[in-house]
Amino acid sequence: MSKRENFIKQFPTIVEDLSEALRAYNMPQEAIEWFTRSLNHNTPGGKLNRGLSVVDTYQILTGKAELSDEEYQKVALLGWCIELLQAYFLVADDMMDHSITRRGQPCWYKVEGVQDIAINDAFMLEAAIYYLLKKYFRSETYYVDLMELFHEVTFQTELGQLLDLITAPEDHVDLSKFSMDKHSFIVRFKTAYYSFYLPVALAMYVAGVTDPRDLKQAQDVLIPLGEYFQIQDDYLDCFGTPEQIGKIGTDIQDNKCSWLINKALEIVTPAQRALLDSNYGKKDDPEAEAKVKALFYELNLEKLYRDYEQNIANQLKEKIANVDESRGFRGQVLTEFLNKVYKRDK
Amino acid sequence: MSKRENFIKQFPTIVEDLSEALRAYNMPQEAIEWFTRSLNHNTPGGKLNRGLSVVDTYQILTGKAELSDEEYQKVALLGWCIELLQAYFLVADDMMDHSITRRGQPCWYKVEGVQDIAINDAFMLEAAIYYLLKKYFRSETYYVDLMELFHEVTFQTELGQLLDLITAPEDHVDLSKFSMDKHSFIVRFKTAYYSFYLPVALAMYVAGVTDPRDLKQAQDVLIPLGEYFQIQDDYLDCFGTPEQIGKIGTDIQDNKCSWLINKALEIVTPAQRALLDSNYGKKDDPEAEAKVKALFYELNLEKLYRDYEQNIANQLKEKIANVDESRGFRGQVLTEFLNKVYKRDK
Repeated sequence: MSKRENFIKQFPTIVEDLSEALRAYNMPQEAIEWFTRSLNHNTPGGKLNRGLSVVDTYQILTGKAELSDEEYQKVALLGWCIELLQAYFLVADDMMDHSITRRGQPCWYKVEGVQDIAINDAFMLEAAIYYLLKKYFRSETYYVDLMELFHEVTFQTELGQLLDLITAPEDHVDLSKFSMDKHSFIVRFKTAYYSFYLPVALAMYVAGVTDPRDLKQAQDVLIPLGEYFQIQDDYLDCFGTPEQIGKIGTDIQDNKCSWLINKALEIVTPAQRALLDSNYGKKDDPEAEAKVKALFYELNLEKLYRDYEQNIANQLKEKIANVDESRGFRGQVLTEFLNKVYKRDK
Repeated sequence: MSKRENFIKQFPTIVEDLSEALRAYNMPQEAIEWFTRSLNHNTPGGKLNRGLSVVDTYQILTGKAELSDEEYQKVALLGWCIELLQAYFLVADDMMDHSITRRGQPCWYKVEGVQDIAINDAFMLEAAIYYLLKKYFRSETYYVDLMELFHEVTFQTELGQLLDLITAPEDHVDLSKFSMDKHSFIVRFKTAYYSFYLPVALAMYVAGVTDPRDLKQAQDVLIPLGEYFQIQDDYLDCFGTPEQIGKIGTDIQDNKCSWLINKALEIVTPAQRALLDSNYGKKDDPEAEAKVKALFYELNLEKLYRDYEQNIANQLKEKIANVDESRGFRGQVLTEFLNKVYKRDK
């Protein structure tokens, strides 16, 4: 059985735990079914990379090729807590972005009968995390650390989302609001903390590798790596083929504060800037989009991206090579993450 | 200075604490200003009864007529955390209910430029609670208890909100979904836990009165008292004068799962039931509303409410009279709450 299948096999137990909590409150059956439907619609179905990497990281840190059922269950549970956190964000993001589909199915708020109730459903996906942490980790010395970590990373992700929403609203283009510094803040806060740092930090707590210097070693690589991952995503949205990225990129039409537009803004002539001001973020206007894209080629952003990629990969490799493993942290944890990102083309 | 003024005086410090947190993350100024605006728009401005009662309860439990500045600040901070929790719920509730105004000003999502960003702003109001708990209570032995209490009460409130939303949707009337049991679940979970139990439990932790038997004594009175408070609210919506309740009641037109309709459903003849089925929950139809109201009078719901009120008040007084004060809990805490609710007419 693949790692992913094994991980997915744990999910029904989690749904059952949460249903049991609602039954213990004497909640009417129809509401239990609603919550169950929301959990199943919103939580599995993605790539589950974040959840799976909690297990992977834990195995590297402990040196265990095989985990006992009980040990696996605990670590996988934390993986599912990240997937619940992501579900909480995505249900809300889809409403704020007016998206239609997610992971090949309708967005939750677009499901018949759901609509705005999805806001409360998002809240409940988050609340589920703390119910599960209490049920499975209450007696652990690091229980407080787990709660504080989820609190902080949640807040950070929301701060990134806020800056993104007010910097690049769908319906009002103002490129003077963009900057590479803001791009960096947005992607680090909105994506890197919960997708890259959180899985590793959780595994570190369970493995007992919790010296603040070790958490810092992890963060110092994983946050710039998460930024690199998102910059790659921005690059592929324009320069990748639809086969590579599994969709047709829409960042230009959607007025996204992406790495490409910020890089372009740093180097354009006044005439080129005028072209961007008139054509960036024009919904349903493929001609405007084509003009921006042509300028991105003309500015040789592909080359600038390759330079950035080589530079950041070298920096991260060097940091990893210098990791201090004396307290039990392992550079290999970071290498595994870097290898998943470096020169990926999808 | 009144208790309320004193309490409100603490709020700018809280806003400053949270702004400082964002500055420490190097968040751009415009996003800090956005968050500050959301905090100020959504948190103060209500009656602040929940927050104030943390301070009152603490003073009764400790027997202190005066608190030192430091002591006051800590207890008031927890009061503000309840107000932040309420702000989080209300920003979202107003979106789900499509409300226009709240506390005499536009709902947050109705403010120019906010709209759906309000979802993320609601999330951030909740995240602020845990930031503040960590800042002010991290070294206390009861820090974990505070976090768990907020987690559980938040989840309970969301469960009540879910059952309310699926039982009484604005746009689809089906009285067969209503029942007095569901009404009881909805009001206990959606209102009583966070408005009545939470302030007292928080004050108990700070005062060191934390035996589970004492928390249970508080809960056993405060949850039915919170239910009584909401039933009174339902009653006044129809039978109170606009001067009493400060607005014109709209529960009948809004298809609310209120105590009155549930009581009526228990005692109606088939013909009266048919009248309710055809006329309850009809938006913008004052004639239909008048028919339902006439039936409510005909069924003598006013008398049935008075009977309920006398009965529950007697039960609660008896429970309070039997409170075991041997471990430091005080029946007076509960009497103060009961006196605020019993026979109030606004």
